[in-house]
Formats: sequence, structure tokens, C-alpha cells
Amino acid sequence: MRVLDVIQKKRDGQELSTGEIHAVIERYTRGEIPDYQMSALLMAIYFQGMSPAETRALIQAMMHSGQVVDLSSIPGTKVDKHSTGGVGDKVSLVLAPLVASVGVPVPMISGRGLGHTGGTLDKLESIPGFRTQLSLSEYRDITAKIGVAMIGQTPELTPADRKLYALRDVTGTVESIPLITASILSKKLAAGPDAIVFDVKVGKAAFMKTMDDAQTLAQNLVNISAEMGRGAVALLTNMNQPLGYAIGNALEVEESIDALAGKGPADLMEIVYALSAEMLWLAKRVETLEEGITVLQQHIADGKALAKFEELIQIQGGDPGVITDRSRLPQATHLYEIKSPQTGWIASMDPLLMGQVACELGAGRATIEDVIDPAVGLSVPVKVGDAVDTGQLLIRVYATDPQKGERAIHRLQTAIEISDTPTTPLSGIYDRLLPGIK
Amino acid sequence: MRVLDVIQKKRDGQELSTGEIHAVIERYTRGEIPDYQMSALLMAIYFQGMSPAETRALIQAMMHSGQVVDLSSIPGTKVDKHSTGGVGDKVSLVLAPLVASVGVPVPMISGRGLGHTGGTLDKLESIPGFRTQLSLSEYRDITAKIGVAMIGQTPELTPADRKLYALRDVTGTVESIPLITASILSKKLAAGPDAIVFDVKVGKAAFMKTMDDAQTLAQNLVNISAEMGRGAVALLTNMNQPLGYAIGNALEVEESIDALAGKGPADLMEIVYALSAEMLWLAKRVETLEEGITVLQQHIADGKALAKFEELIQIQGGDPGVITDRSRLPQATHLYEIKSPQTGWIASMDPLLMGQVACELGAGRATIEDVIDPAVGLSVPVKVGDAVDTGQLLIRVYATDPQKGERAIHRLQTAIEISDTPTTPLSGIYDRLLPGIK
Repeated sequence: MRVLDVIQKKRDGQELSTGEIHAVIERYTRGEIPDYQMSALLMAIYFQGMSPAETRALIQAMMHSGQVVDLSSIPGTKVDKHSTGGVGDKVSLVLAPLVASVGVPVPMISGRGLGHTGGTLDKLESIPGFRTQLSLSEYRDITAKIGVAMIGQTPELTPADRKLYALRDVTGTVESIPLITASILSKKLAAGPDAIVFDVKVGKAAFMKTMDDAQTLAQNLVNISAEMGRGAVALLTNMNQPLGYAIGNALEVEESIDALAGKGPADLMEIVYALSAEMLWLAKRVETLEEGITVLQQHIADGKALAKFEELIQIQGGDPGVITDRSRLPQATHLYEIKSPQTGWIASMDPLLMGQVACELGAGRATIEDVIDPAVGLSVPVKVGDAVDTGQLLIRVYATDPQKGERAIHRLQTAIEISDTPTTPLSGIYDRLLPGIK
Repeated sequence: MRVLDVIQKKRDGQELSTGEIHAVIERYTRGEIPDYQMSALLMAIYFQGMSPAETRALIQAMMHSGQVVDLSSIPGTKVDKHSTGGVGDKVSLVLAPLVASVGVPVPMISGRGLGHTGGTLDKLESIPGFRTQLSLSEYRDITAKIGVAMIGQTPELTPADRKLYALRDVTGTVESIPLITASILSKKLAAGPDAIVFDVKVGKAAFMKTMDDAQTLAQNLVNISAEMGRGAVALLTNMNQPLGYAIGNALEVEESIDALAGKGPADLMEIVYALSAEMLWLAKRVETLEEGITVLQQHIADGKALAKFEELIQIQGGDPGVITDRSRLPQATHLYEIKSPQTGWIASMDPLLMGQVACELGAGRATIEDVIDPAVGLSVPVKVGDAVDTGQLLIRVYATDPQKGERAIHRLQTAIEISDTPTTPLSGIYDRLLPGIK
């Protein structure tokens, strides 16, 4: 096989064979295909797409480019959750201990934030001492012992995805549904779960801007997961405002603790309960989603979910004292506020801008080398549809550098639009997709 | 400017600015943009195309990536000819001395063969001693002195094109009309001519397989040349059979000498006269093409054209004795023949196969590192439409390695199709394009 022939075949709209895809991925992972040929192939895939068979072959090839974790020694149906990323998306921090507290194992391998979206690992690491860079055997052991582990990518897992993602990031080939599907599923499947719930976010601050794209991606994800023998459900959820109030690492840990203690913002809890109930349903722990939500609410009410989070923090080396003493989390030194200039109703928000401003404050990374400031971020304690009074708090900025804080306030002046007439709250969940429906 | 933004802009079908294109080419030439980003951009250009303004900017940027030759000290209108390449295309060897013999300077910077097409430099170098790797000042001096010079690319000329072409060759991004246009014109314009005649070949063994593509490319070439202040004409010519009889380097030099001596095959002479007349017309040496052809025929008849070729060989270090003594050219050691198995008419030929077989015999390169065998090749002394008798010679194979010769004979069995009923000769010239007609 000549790589040039594969590039030209894809460029000309012909279907690549499973053998060709495996050969390309294996040779690229071994460094035998130069980046300049791979980026040309990726751009050709961007334009020509991939058939379901090609996408499956790509996932298999990427998944098997490294170790595939075997979790079969752990009893029960292991269920993971994947989000395509949004602003204020701390769902994993609440959902993982919550679902585990019900007895369904949640082995979770998460990512870091880049650009305006945050990353679960960065949030967890704002808890003093919390270790996310564990080995795959620690990951398996911790899941076996307490029913939940939350770790970062390890070098043994899907090296092809790591190499490909870095290349796509600098060659304008990120926004391709088959490539996104392959990146997500190769990583998730290599981590060993029996079932996966997908949270595909749609809207201004989401990776998928249109419902059509989101639906295509979500259907791809559940169909291929099912074809590979995994249970799968996808929810399409709204990313036209931040999820919950907090944006920023330590701030989101605080809000997650609130959520596990039964005091989470309603929009966050709606998504947490919906995704968690899908996980219980996929694990056959409950027969209906309604039953699932009832069980989950009980586990929050009686403190079991929060206790599981405490157990997780402890076993991964973090300071469980943060649960009762928030001052143990990194604290911002300079606070700024934007208040409502009028009476009215929240008409719209710009969560992309909010995410970018949080990133500029130090909560995220513009490039992979940037260092996170865990203390900084925003609190936005209003939602579209809310009535507001003159002088009511709209945004609080948490900064450690006053210059950045001032700049954030300046940038956020247009982030919230207020109407003189009542507005409609945004729905949290647009759609639910099961495998097989085309 | 971030390269990634430029890639995404082009990928999304937006027009790049002149500044962006210049910055990309300058930085790529200096090695500041990695090949993997450039190949992604090239593939995006393959799919999205380029506007005339973008193409012009690309040509200017590539042209000025190195030295631009100033030939203004040489009196008269300097005219060059460019062919998109074909099988048996020895037109430059005949046309350059012929046009120069009429007093129109022909400064010509040519290329080498790759794949099934031959290269003018390789043909010239089959003349013992002939030097093509001259400096730009030798190129200028020789043109000033005898009115014609035929040299190879030098490192100072369009380094951007050299880098880009090597990358396109291995990333499936060769077949893009704006990129082809830019590659041709940046090189041609940097070499300093005042006017250019383009021979855009169409057909089985041409780079452009369809009339539509050829027309688009040809119109691009003449329009942009004119916009850049150069006279320009393009002819679309037939590449569904070899041009002339000879394929292979020394064989084509022999046929070129025949042509300059008034004994060239009719199909070759038709193209030579047509292109040469356009050059005289662009240089305002004649008022009509008919007048041009008359002048050219005289210069062949009275030996001036052949004398100019002798002068050229001499000044570039070659052995002018080859003109009268063909045995001074490299000679094949093993000859093979294919004869007509029947009486009939030549219905079609496969010039691509013939070019590939000549290449396999050693007349061309499969990769840039291959060494040419100047002696080998084919002679195909029939044309589509010709009547043939049983036993009449169709193809003679000139080999230096008997194994390769046997293999060539075997491969060529299907190269010529004979019909029981009369067939129509192919027209040599399909169309003539002037600037401005869209």
C-alpha cells in the first residue's frame, strides 16, 4: 500500500478498505508515515467524509494502536459518560460519584480543557493533592475498590489518537464528524466500559453549532458503540448558556459539592439526573428512567453521593476537607461584579464569550503549554428567562491578577442581554437518541 | 497571521487576501511553516479552488520567493514556450532554435521528465557534453549572444515552487488547476520573458484528460500572463497519440534534427509551426500567423534553423557533430519490433502505455533519483488514420537490457488498435485561446 494512493482514493471520493485504514493508522503511529501526508489525508476526509464501515475501521485501528483495558474482573456493568464539552460543564464531577453510590461502577478517563471549554482533570486538580495521572492498573484497582475512578489519559492508551489529535488541532481538520467520532470512541472503548452515555452539546459555546451536526454525531456515536457491543444512549443538550452558575476550576468543584449536597442549580441537576438515569438504565440497575431519577435523588438526599465523592478524593490523594471547608480550595484575591442596569428578563447569554473570558483569566489554556490558575473564573447566577431587578448581580469575576479582572469586566459587558418583556427559559435537553435509528 | 486561520478560511470557502498568501509563501519558503500545515492548505485548495485574485497573488508570491531574471538588456521581445507535457513531445528542441533563427530571442528554462512524460533537459543531455545546469548569468549571456539558451531550473529561481511541488507530489495535491497555474507561471515569469506561448495538451497521455479542464487551465494561463503584462496565447493540442514517431531521449534528438532539416513527421511539424508562428506573432515579427509559418518554413528550408541548433549545442558545450553523424548519440544495443498482424487502419493508440514502457526501458524516471538511459525508447512510425499492411512495422523498441526489451514488447501488444474499416486521423490542434475570453 502506498500512502499517496490512499490519499488520492479518499480525495476522489472512493471508499477506503479496512486494510488500508488499519495500515495507515499502524504505520502513522509507528512514525512511518510523515505528518504532511497524514494531514493531507485528514483534509481529504474533512471534505469527503467517511462511510460507517470506514469510521468503524478507523475506530478499531485507533483503539488498538495502544493498550485496551480489560475491566471484566470487576463485577457489574461498567458505564462511562462522555461530553463533547461546554462552558460550566462540571457534570462528570457530580455524576460519577452519584452513579457509583448507587452501585454501578463508573471508570472514567477524562481530558483537559483547551480554549473556552474546561476539562474534568483541571477541575479535579484544583482539589489540593488530587492525583489524576494514575496508571491503568491503579485505575482498575480503584474502580474495583470504590466503584469509581477519574483519571487522565495515559501514554499506553490510543497513541494514534494523541498523535492525530495534535495534528488535526494545527491543520484545520478538527471539525469532521467521522474524525470526531473516531477520536471519542477509540479512547472511550479502549478504556474498557460496557456502556456509554453521550452528552452531545449543541449551541453557541458547543463544538456542534447546529442541531443537524449534533444529531449526526450523536447517532454515529451510539450506532457504532452498539455495533461494537456496547450499550449506548446520547442526549442532545443545550449549550446556549453556561451549565450551572460557576465557570472555573475550583469554583466548579465548589458547585459540584453543592450539587452532591442537594443544593445544585436546577439546570445543572436536570442534566446530571438525566444522564445518570441513562447510566443506571444501561446498567439494568433500574427499569425506567423515572425510577432511576428517584433512586438518584434519594442518594443525593441521604448523603451517599457526597460520601462517595469524599471517598474518591481520599483514594486519589486529594484533601477531602474541601467538602466541609471551601477555604481549602484555591481562592481568588480580586472580585468584581456586573449588576443589572435595569429591570427586565434575561433574553440571551454569550457562553462562548464567558468561556473565553474565564480562559483569559487563567481558568483555561489557549495553548497546551499554558498553566491553569485554579482559583479564577466567573459566577453567573442567572439563566435565560429569569426576571432581574436593577442592581441585581449578573456576573461575579474571580481574579488573581487585577489587570485581568478589569479586562474581564470590560469584555463581559455584552455577555448578557436583558429584555423589557418576559423571555422563555431554555430547554436543557433537546433529544434522546438510541442506537439504530438513522 | 496564524497559518491555522488561513487553512480554516480556505477550507470554509472564503477568499484569502493577497497579504495572507504572500505571508504563507514567504514563511513556508523560509521553513517557518511546517509541511503538515502546508499540505492541509494545499488539499483545502484542491477542494475549494482559488479565485483569479488569489491565483495571481500566489503566482506573485512564488515568483518573488527567489530571483527574478531581468532580460531587458537584451533587445527585442523575448518569447518562451511552455508545454504541459506529453509523450514524444520534442517541440522545444525544434522550436527554440527555429524561432531564434528568425531573430526572436528564446530564453528557455526547462524541466526534467517524471513518470511517462519526458523532459527537455534529459533529451538535450543525451547530446555528449551538452550542459544544461548553467548559471542565470550564463543563461542571460547566451541568450544575448546567440538568441537562444536552454537551461535547467537553478536554485535561485522560485524556491517556493520547488518546495511546494515536491510536497504536492507526495500528498495527492498535484491535480489542482490554480496550483498548476501558479507552478507554471511563477517559474516562467521569474525567467524573464516578455511573452509566452502555452501548449496545453489534452488526452490520454496528457496531464489534462478533459477538454474542460484543459480549457480552464489554458484560459487561466493566458489571462493571468496578460494581467501581469506579458503577451500570451495558448493552443490546446492532441495527446491521444505520441507526438512524432520517436519516444526516448537520443531518439527524440535525432528526430528533432530531422525536423530542423525539413524531414520531420507531419504531426510534429504542424505543432512546431503553429506554436512557433504564435511566438513570432507575439514578438510582432510577423503580422499574421500565415506569414509566420511562411517565414519559419523558409528558415528550415535554407538550413538557418538547423545552424542555430548547431550553434546552441556548441555554446552549451555539446558535440555538434551529432547533427551530421548520428552514431555520436548514445545507441541502443538490442532492437525489437512489433509488426502489424493484419491489413487495416490504425484506430487508436495508447500513448500513456507507450510513455510508461519507454520509462521502464530507462528513458524516464519513476522517482526523482532514477538515472536516465539516453539510448533507449520507442519508435512508432504510424499515426491514427494510417492504412497499414500485414507485416508493416508498428513499433520498434530500442533497449540496452534484453530483459527490459522483451518485457517492453510484451507490454506493447495492446498499444495500437487496428480496425478493418478506414479510420479518421486525429486533429493536432483543438483550439487557440487569447487572454480575456472567459
